[in-house]
Amino acid sequence: MSKEPAKRPLKVAILGCGTVGREVVRLLLTQSDDLRARIGAPLEIAGIAVRRSGRDRGDLGIDPALFTTDAHGLAVREDVDLVVEVVGGIEPARSWLVDALKAGKSVVSANKALLAEDGATLQEAAAVGGADLYYEAAVAAAIPIIRPLRESLHGDRITRVTGIVNGTTNYILSQMDATGAGFNEALDEATELGYAEADPTADVEGFDAGAKAAILASLAFHTRVTAADVYREGITEVTAADVASAKAMGSTVKLLCIAERHVDADGGESVSVRVHPAMLPRTHPLSSVGDAFNAVFVEADAAGQLMFYGRGAGGAPTASAVVGDLVAVARNRLAGARTTAESPYADLRIRTVAEALTRYHISLDVADKAGVLSEVAAAFAGHDVSISTVRQEGRGDDATLVIVTHTATDAALAATVDALRDLPIVRNVVSVMRVEGGEFK
Amino acid sequence: MSKEPAKRPLKVAILGCGTVGREVVRLLLTQSDDLRARIGAPLEIAGIAVRRSGRDRGDLGIDPALFTTDAHGLAVREDVDLVVEVVGGIEPARSWLVDALKAGKSVVSANKALLAEDGATLQEAAAVGGADLYYEAAVAAAIPIIRPLRESLHGDRITRVTGIVNGTTNYILSQMDATGAGFNEALDEATELGYAEADPTADVEGFDAGAKAAILASLAFHTRVTAADVYREGITEVTAADVASAKAMGSTVKLLCIAERHVDADGGESVSVRVHPAMLPRTHPLSSVGDAFNAVFVEADAAGQLMFYGRGAGGAPTASAVVGDLVAVARNRLAGARTTAESPYADLRIRTVAEALTRYHISLDVADKAGVLSEVAAAFAGHDVSISTVRQEGRGDDATLVIVTHTATDAALAATVDALRDLPIVRNVVSVMRVEGGEFK
Repeated sequence: MSKEPAKRPLKVAILGCGTVGREVVRLLLTQSDDLRARIGAPLEIAGIAVRRSGRDRGDLGIDPALFTTDAHGLAVREDVDLVVEVVGGIEPARSWLVDALKAGKSVVSANKALLAEDGATLQEAAAVGGADLYYEAAVAAAIPIIRPLRESLHGDRITRVTGIVNGTTNYILSQMDATGAGFNEALDEATELGYAEADPTADVEGFDAGAKAAILASLAFHTRVTAADVYREGITEVTAADVASAKAMGSTVKLLCIAERHVDADGGESVSVRVHPAMLPRTHPLSSVGDAFNAVFVEADAAGQLMFYGRGAGGAPTASAVVGDLVAVARNRLAGARTTAESPYADLRIRTVAEALTRYHISLDVADKAGVLSEVAAAFAGHDVSISTVRQEGRGDDATLVIVTHTATDAALAATVDALRDLPIVRNVVSVMRVEGGEFK
Repeated sequence: MSKEPAKRPLKVAILGCGTVGREVVRLLLTQSDDLRARIGAPLEIAGIAVRRSGRDRGDLGIDPALFTTDAHGLAVREDVDLVVEVVGGIEPARSWLVDALKAGKSVVSANKALLAEDGATLQEAAAVGGADLYYEAAVAAAIPIIRPLRESLHGDRITRVTGIVNGTTNYILSQMDATGAGFNEALDEATELGYAEADPTADVEGFDAGAKAAILASLAFHTRVTAADVYREGITEVTAADVASAKAMGSTVKLLCIAERHVDADGGESVSVRVHPAMLPRTHPLSSVGDAFNAVFVEADAAGQLMFYGRGAGGAPTASAVVGDLVAVARNRLAGARTTAESPYADLRIRTVAEALTRYHISLDVADKAGVLSEVAAAFAGHDVSISTVRQEGRGDDATLVIVTHTATDAALAATVDALRDLPIVRNVVSVMRVEGGEFK
């Protein structure tokens, strides 16, 4: 192949210099020769937008003149070709990126909250400016999952995406499973070890996983799904008893994000997208994803079952994904090309959680007398919920019934639980948890 | 976004109509609406090259006039835009693809043997014709591994790729592990179940895995690695005793393909690429990849450890990867763009297997008398091989020494084994096997 003349450097604006931004800078500096060879032109840092100037960032080895507090000015600056956004949050990040994209700058973003709430606005701005919008780092950090969904599986029909996409909650649940600890105890330990933030709400209430679920569902089903469309339940109500009950049936409790394709009664299709804790059989590949690791399990008609596994958070893994995207948009820029944006052409109806098909594991304290099982079974039958297994534990005053259902709508299952609570012979509904991954039992 | 005018169909030539070719045709027909939406133009089958005409292929629902035995003529035909090659083998596939690429047709190939032996010739032809060459299906079928290596991880420095990339051998070894069967017994069962071909040589001798190792190493290290550069050892010598011995130390035997980056004494870098059975600790994520599944484990400086898992063979999974690539090259064609080809710019030296750093598990029948361990240990020390663990099993005439070494060059380890064979107190070298995944112990 003929030697091509050296290309002018592509100039990169970096918005944000926290944990991820610093690692991006470090990769751009330490990998610069390889990046030049892979792209066909050098990448040059045009500037780094920071919240506060004057901090000592000498360890990065960057000319102090490159730091600025004017993120918007940097993002739209004439000489900037590519913009990296690792600030997070909806505003002002959205305004900066919209203006940068409209001005023709390609954007690499790790901002899951923004993409899940209003990815459409960014996509439209990218179309107006003829620019690329890449965001591999927004879900599961360095695990390549956006690109496989956006490109590799485009010849196939994806039926379900199930993910463990939040490291904090996975660490907490893994600890509860390993030690028998309760939620609060496990959370305290996670906080001490730096796996949970001082305010863990976004993680433990499932907001973080919900944003990622929206992004994955949009790509998998070519349908616009926003964070508001995702049914969300966190792990704060998961008890040591739930985890022990899961163990007893050969399962483990995981916070899952699930995006499923359904065929409706009229032959049309719809999707359900939800985040909630669920019991997963230990034979399911996701059940062995422990500690702070992430994994995404994809099912497609032709490809079958695929799993993507790795570290889903952290400065270096996230920066790896950002710089990988940067190489792609830089190559496109040099080729004068643009990657066709994902299109929400399928525009499938989004189901409410009530319509989602799921299974329940229900544990009841019951009076130990004749006819209990028959009354309980009648409550299920009355809502058209079919029982898969019943297990009676203990006797006398400590009698517990553990029931696992077949698949039914969440609405029917929730109504069944309400009916059980009203039965005089049911002293207490000890735990109710969804069961997933049934096909692996 | 404005409605764009309907684009003319892109015409696809399909070379080969075996298991994979038929599934490609099926996907193109059943997914045609989705494919048109994802690409922005319809795909139209221009022709299907078959070895023998006149066979009944009515079940495909294809106009019989589209079948031809002139594969070359079809591949270079004026109206053809894209060529899918699912024939396999070096020639005549290479000539067809070279001419098609030079004529500007983008190519999607599942031909691992050709890509591993002479990918460079295809890349050059693609550069001449300004065409794309995609081959996700050549390694691990539908598991997206080529695109992550080729694109997602481009911002990172990959240090090692370890894969289980042959389903036949993984099925055989999984059976040996589960049932204690010997190699021949497990092979017979695999043949009966259709997991092994009538002539299983390419699988059990590691040729298939070797070709995939060459392709993965080339992408991971930006260095031209061909099948001839890969050290290759099959699984025919793996005994039930080896598998039992692995079990005893909490490991399992897997046929691994390994591509590693090394830093040489002079500060330069080199790579070693090899395929051989090895003991892997059961705590390593690859150890739980059972039956005919495939998985590729990637380690990179910033991303850390990633794993990609799924069905690595079969008509439908392979076709999913082929059609996913077809969408990518079709989009490029419409955009007038071309994906920058992977470049072997790093051109790292390829180590011989003698230089590869590995660990050995050695099992010896020894005479049970004083001083045995000291003589054996001296043989290791004489070749600068450090011993990690020694375990003595049995007593008297049945005394067995099981030794696991620390990392050493394969040459030093092989020389140590030769020296052990020459020791009068060593009655028999029962088994010698490499040990991998040590960092997971």
